Amino acid sequence: MSKYAKRIPAMEGEVKKLKVLTDALISPTIVSFAGGAPAKEAYPFDQIREICNDVFQPNATGFGAMAYGSQIGNLALREAVRDYLLKPRGLDVSVDNIMITAGGIQPLNFMCSLYLDPGDTILVETPTFVHADMIFKMFQANFVPCKMDEYGLVMEDVEEKIKKYNPKFIYTIPTFQNPTGVTLSRERRKKLAELANQYDVMVLEDDPYREIRYSGEELIPIKAFDQKDNVIFSGSFSKIFSPGSRLGFLVASDDQIAKFCNIKLGSDTCTNTMAQAIAAEFFKRGYYPQHLENLKNLYRSRRDAMIKALDAYFPAGTKHTYPDGGYYVWAELPEGLDATALAQEIGEKLNICYGNGSIFYSEGNPEGAGNNCMRLNFSGQTEESIEKNFKLLGEFFTAKLNEK
Amino acid sequence: MSKYAKRIPAMEGEVKKLKVLTDALISPTIVSFAGGAPAKEAYPFDQIREICNDVFQPNATGFGAMAYGSQIGNLALREAVRDYLLKPRGLDVSVDNIMITAGGIQPLNFMCSLYLDPGDTILVETPTFVHADMIFKMFQANFVPCKMDEYGLVMEDVEEKIKKYNPKFIYTIPTFQNPTGVTLSRERRKKLAELANQYDVMVLEDDPYREIRYSGEELIPIKAFDQKDNVIFSGSFSKIFSPGSRLGFLVASDDQIAKFCNIKLGSDTCTNTMAQAIAAEFFKRGYYPQHLENLKNLYRSRRDAMIKALDAYFPAGTKHTYPDGGYYVWAELPEGLDATALAQEIGEKLNICYGNGSIFYSEGNPEGAGNNCMRLNFSGQTEESIEKNFKLLGEFFTAKLNEK
Repeated sequence: MSKYAKRIPAMEGEVKKLKVLTDALISPTIVSFAGGAPAKEAYPFDQIREICNDVFQPNATGFGAMAYGSQIGNLALREAVRDYLLKPRGLDVSVDNIMITAGGIQPLNFMCSLYLDPGDTILVETPTFVHADMIFKMFQANFVPCKMDEYGLVMEDVEEKIKKYNPKFIYTIPTFQNPTGVTLSRERRKKLAELANQYDVMVLEDDPYREIRYSGEELIPIKAFDQKDNVIFSGSFSKIFSPGSRLGFLVASDDQIAKFCNIKLGSDTCTNTMAQAIAAEFFKRGYYPQHLENLKNLYRSRRDAMIKALDAYFPAGTKHTYPDGGYYVWAELPEGLDATALAQEIGEKLNICYGNGSIFYSEGNPEGAGNNCMRLNFSGQTEESIEKNFKLLGEFFTAKLNEK
Repeated sequence: MSKYAKRIPAMEGEVKKLKVLTDALISPTIVSFAGGAPAKEAYPFDQIREICNDVFQPNATGFGAMAYGSQIGNLALREAVRDYLLKPRGLDVSVDNIMITAGGIQPLNFMCSLYLDPGDTILVETPTFVHADMIFKMFQANFVPCKMDEYGLVMEDVEEKIKKYNPKFIYTIPTFQNPTGVTLSRERRKKLAELANQYDVMVLEDDPYREIRYSGEELIPIKAFDQKDNVIFSGSFSKIFSPGSRLGFLVASDDQIAKFCNIKLGSDTCTNTMAQAIAAEFFKRGYYPQHLENLKNLYRSRRDAMIKALDAYFPAGTKHTYPDGGYYVWAELPEGLDATALAQEIGEKLNICYGNGSIFYSEGNPEGAGNNCMRLNFSGQTEESIEKNFKLLGEFFTAKLNEK
């Protein structure tokens, strides 16, 4: 049979890592803390039905819900992005610099399409989002991992690696990072934009969790500090509306947007106009603020339940982050406990799964990095489930530690 | 500013050609025969509203209309593809070998992702679909144009060029081809599959128009003759349901599907689950057969009106195809009339546009090829509009010819 392109074997390793997560996501019986999906009870079904009744009318003008759409996307939805998701968060841009995409993953693919040739280097966080790594490998990139601490990427390390490796871009999830939940500080956001401008290196600011903040102070995007079009900002409707709608967006310069529109034509022509029309109306009818408040209340309680259960049940010496928003807590088990090695036994005995920490460590990290870590998703489980299952998990780990 | 990847300048020329079409498509005032969109009156709004009311219910199980979906796509929709679009057309495959995609363009992109490295060669039809060319250029492919006659691709020419150029794949739209409306004969379908198997070269069988046949006998797909997984079949819901739903599909072997699923993860995670759930119900509720019949009746009359007007009003010596289905008639004006050069004057004076023939001639063709040709879309204009505007066009061309 005909030989596959070079990108296919290049992405194989990352695909295998990612499958650990996606397979857990679709298993119907296991209690999963591995996923990254919204709670089922978080979808605004009633409003969607109401909107569909108005949008899918032969005489309804301006929706275009059944027809081809433009590459840049539905104007009303771009206005909603500007007015609800960007301007109040400190990023004041024209609708001409906002493009609607097929979910929050497509901007990552488009960023690679615009900037990456095979063999190019990019800087990534440590740990980083394994799904993103897989896309970068599809474009045959090399990774250079950068250090993080409790305030996010360490700028001295980033600057040193820009100088040493001349990367095409720096990939960061600055707010409630996936997988750690850590948020890049204001000072570092400013510094990262300055470094990008100074060294003319691009930054992909992937910010899908920004809206769902439960505590702490809101921070303006890196893009707001960008003076020379070196930062591409991307967001998503997956966590605040519906992942099934496959809607996201990116913010870029006129020329970058024009190129992204060409890439869009070459990828899938235009974004689903049905979902765009429905989402645009959802914002236009004023449903978003209350919906977001509901989401935050729902997830805040779950975060708090998870932190409480971690502190109560996990073995002494376990460290964990305290995320101000998003979906994940990152836990580091005490020396001698290998969360990756124990995952299968835990699945079989306790019927529980989590994100193995090791899969979030890109190439360039030492063998075994992250083996004692776990990405713990709290959006998908009730407080009761978190309490019950973390007690089981904690007891299991404690018993394992005592065996040694 | 950071330098773009090599694919960006590589695709620039084809993007420019394609823009001629897409710009005409979105101009609100011009009478366009340039497009390739369904008639506005062809959308099943009433059924869609009914379906939305049932699908977007918190307790509705099995739809998953708001959540993440699998990479291969909604099972009910894959069953509908199997039962309505493939099995009755002569292609009997398992749902495991059917993948739902974001429209009918995404399979072209995925085919390139799976098989093309920069500099690889592909065989294309002459003339060919300019949007496809643009995608192939995004993957930095080289084109070798192959001859067509009234029965489609000429097999002797294809075989000679397989031997000479060792192409990665052959791109064909075998049924009611875009732009010519020509259909590949049964014998040649069989032969093309045999050549693909014999020389181990892939074929991308792009078949979005198959369902809307107005006359002549149905022909089974090339894929039905394929013995060794050398043919990827792709279809679309854009012409038979809604382009705004961004739904298409492809048929491939287990291993190819697995790889396409990885590429899907790296492109947009999964196809819009809202649109998939709605479309699946549309088939499940039995709405498709009558809807298709309505479409065929609508478009058949428009095709006949266009053929009649071409014969009545265009200058003597004009040649045109007589398509048995699809969206397009291909016309060749008499010697001395340059449809591409006259397009702007016609736009300004008559407020009419059409697909300039020249843009459908890929690299590898002589300079000026197709200048006297036009792709004429009949799906988007009423019979009255076709009659009225083709009279104007015919008179204009006749006058131009008499000037000489």
